[in-house]
This record gives sequence, structure tokens and C-alpha cells, in this order.
Amino acid sequence: MSLVRVHNFSVSLDGFGTGEGQRLDAPFGHASSRLVEWAMATRTFREMGIPGPTSGSTGLDDAFASTWRRGIGAEIMGRNKFGPQRGPWTDEEWKGWWGDDPVFHTPVVVLTHHPRPVLEMQGGTSFHFVDADPATALEAARILAGDLDVRIGGGVDTVRQFLAADLVDHLHVVVVPILLGRGERLWDGLEGLEERFDIEATPSPSGVVHLVFTRRARASAARS
Amino acid sequence: MSLVRVHNFSVSLDGFGTGEGQRLDAPFGHASSRLVEWAMATRTFREMGIPGPTSGSTGLDDAFASTWRRGIGAEIMGRNKFGPQRGPWTDEEWKGWWGDDPVFHTPVVVLTHHPRPVLEMQGGTSFHFVDADPATALEAARILAGDLDVRIGGGVDTVRQFLAADLVDHLHVVVVPILLGRGERLWDGLEGLEERFDIEATPSPSGVVHLVFTRRARASAARS
Repeated sequence: MSLVRVHNFSVSLDGFGTGEGQRLDAPFGHASSRLVEWAMATRTFREMGIPGPTSGSTGLDDAFASTWRRGIGAEIMGRNKFGPQRGPWTDEEWKGWWGDDPVFHTPVVVLTHHPRPVLEMQGGTSFHFVDADPATALEAARILAGDLDVRIGGGVDTVRQFLAADLVDHLHVVVVPILLGRGERLWDGLEGLEERFDIEATPSPSGVVHLVFTRRARASAARS
Repeated sequence: MSLVRVHNFSVSLDGFGTGEGQRLDAPFGHASSRLVEWAMATRTFREMGIPGPTSGSTGLDDAFASTWRRGIGAEIMGRNKFGPQRGPWTDEEWKGWWGDDPVFHTPVVVLTHHPRPVLEMQGGTSFHFVDADPATALEAARILAGDLDVRIGGGVDTVRQFLAADLVDHLHVVVVPILLGRGERLWDGLEGLEERFDIEATPSPSGVVHLVFTRRARASAARS
């Protein structure tokens, strides 16, 4: 069975996955780029087209960041990660803010209450607009992924929904040592989550702490 | 100038310093003992009188735990840490739940809206009941501490108040990899706290992560 994975998901020390006041020119709101600075400094993100003064770091942060693509056959993302429009689509000519050749290079399921035709992009990326609950969206993504894994790409609400529905096998959270005070919380409504996972913590010289949650074997289901 | 320090203060991954439903027989509410298991396993806590099957661990967790007493001349605690009574004192014969020879062995300032006479205990502990804001309580504690440091002993609200008033120099927080989902949050209202501190993260083999916040030098005040 292929795995469902979350990678490079940053939260502040007080648990916010994004700040308050998200806008087109401020996708993380008042958090600005503070939650993702560790990632933007890596060679992995440089290879995605994030510009920077150097070719990017290749230490621990990059090692974690680099695993996001390995063995992934499809991504699931919330609509906000595709583009800032709300409500019915008014401009289907606009093809999201990922450019003509998006970084995904796989099918991408976009969760939206307003389906529209599939968008085929360059480089192997295609956007599939689906109005469905997490489990149903995952079924669709698994078909698109073939035998490969499915990545839950965010944002905060999408990741939390998949965790709440107990659909995630691998969760990589990066705790950034800042207190945002306000925004959208990742951990709300997930009491007891740790009972289903082994958790490994690794601090980075950059100051962030990488947490890797790995699902424990499902004792009964594994034998059925 | 003596320092103001917080030690061995546990929070869940979602930021709760205690669970919901605190009672006399459940001081951490539904969190039960899960936030303090790492500490109760250490030799340091065994020496405080916490019973256990062994003489206590002496690894990383114990090394951190053991620094709580070094150079401390007084503690400040919230009333709930002294005892479970609320409102005016109805039984001044009852001397708190720390026994005849409390573990502190220094003066202790108990924050309460209902002052009462000083309680002299065995072993050097004395309880001083003070109705004051954090800064004023700290002045009193500093006089009691002589040249030594002052420890803020908790609970959650007391620590948060001293952090909000920018009175803490050293903060040792232990992040326990559990999601409590509900209770009392340590980090609320502390947006931007990290700007005043250097933060070091050290994961323990026990699964917790020790965070040490050390106040940065106050650029101007340091020279005045």
C-alpha cells in the first residue's frame, strides 16, 4: 500500500502553520517568510526555483527537505495553494501561481467546492479539481499516483483534516523557534494524535527542530 | 544582578502546560502525569522525595532537571502550587501540600489576593503570602533571596505573567511529544518573545525536547 506523506510543514513554537492576515502578497500573513526561511536557504528549494544568494545549503535542513519528492506520484492541496481566488472560478485562463511548469511534476488534486476541467501543465503536472472529503480525495489521488505515494501539500487546514481523518502515514513538521501569537493552528482538534505515531525529534544548527511522525503498524489491519 | 529563572516547565507539543479539569487529585487535569513523566524518572526528582522503582536516571533529563536548585535564593509560585484552596483562607492550620519539610529550602513568595502571616517550615522553607503584580512580587523575592537568583515555580499562568512582563532571564521548557488538545496554554499572548532570547533545543533519548531560552544582553541597560 502506498503511503500518505506530509513534508516540510513549518509551525511556530506556539503551533501556528500560518500567521494572521493572509493576502495575495503575504501568503503567510504577519508571519511573513519567517516560517519558511530554513527551507528557502536549502539547495532543494533552490532547485524548485526559489532564488537566493548562494546555490543553497546542503546540511541537515536540506537532507530533510530533499525527501519531499522521492516516490511521490500525486499531491493533494487545498485551493488556496493553487491560487487566491474564492468562490466560483471567474477566470479559467489563469492557471494558478505555480507558472507554466509547476514544481510538482505529478498529478495534483486541488480540493475545491467548484470543480472545473483538468488543467494539463508542462513538465508532467496536471491539476484535478475535486469537491470531496479527505478519504474520497485520497482515493482519487491514489489512482492518479499509481503505485507511488501521495503527498498532502497543505495548507494548514488541509493537513489538519487529513490528520483528523487518520489518513496520514508520515508527517514531517518543522518547529520554528518563533511565537506568532495568532494565525491558523495546526494541532487543534488532534488530541491523542501521538498514540498512533512514533515521533523522532532532531534539532538543526539553523535553530529549527525537525519532528518526524511515523505511523505505527496497524496491529489487526496488517494481518487482514 | 541576580537572574530570574524558570526550570523543568513541561508543555505538550500543542503548547498546554496543564490539561483540562484540574482537581486536588488530578493537579494536571486530563493530562494526568504525562507531562512530568520525564522528570519523575530522574534522580533529581527522586531526591525531592518522588518515589520510584529505581534510584532515578542520571542522563540528559537529569542533568537539565538538576540545575533547578543551583544558586536559587527564593521561589515565586502561584497560589495553586501552595494548595488547592480558593478565596479567603478558612484553615490556616493547613500548611500546603509540600509537607513539614518542603523541597524548596528557601523563602517562597506565594501570589494570592488573600495575604496571611508568614509560615516558617522546617529545612529553611518559609512561605510569604503576597498580593502584588509580578514586578512588585519580584522585588520582594529579591530581598528574600539576597544575592541569589529567583525561580518562578509556576503554574502556567504565573510563568506566562512573568514572561509577558519581560521579567524572565532563563527559561527551561520541556516539550513533551503529546497532543493534549485542551487545558491551559503557556504561549498565549507572548507574540515575538523569541526576539529577546537565544534559544537552544536539545532532544532527549526519552523523547522530550529541552528548550533553553537565554535572555540576550540588554544593549543599552547593560552600560548604564
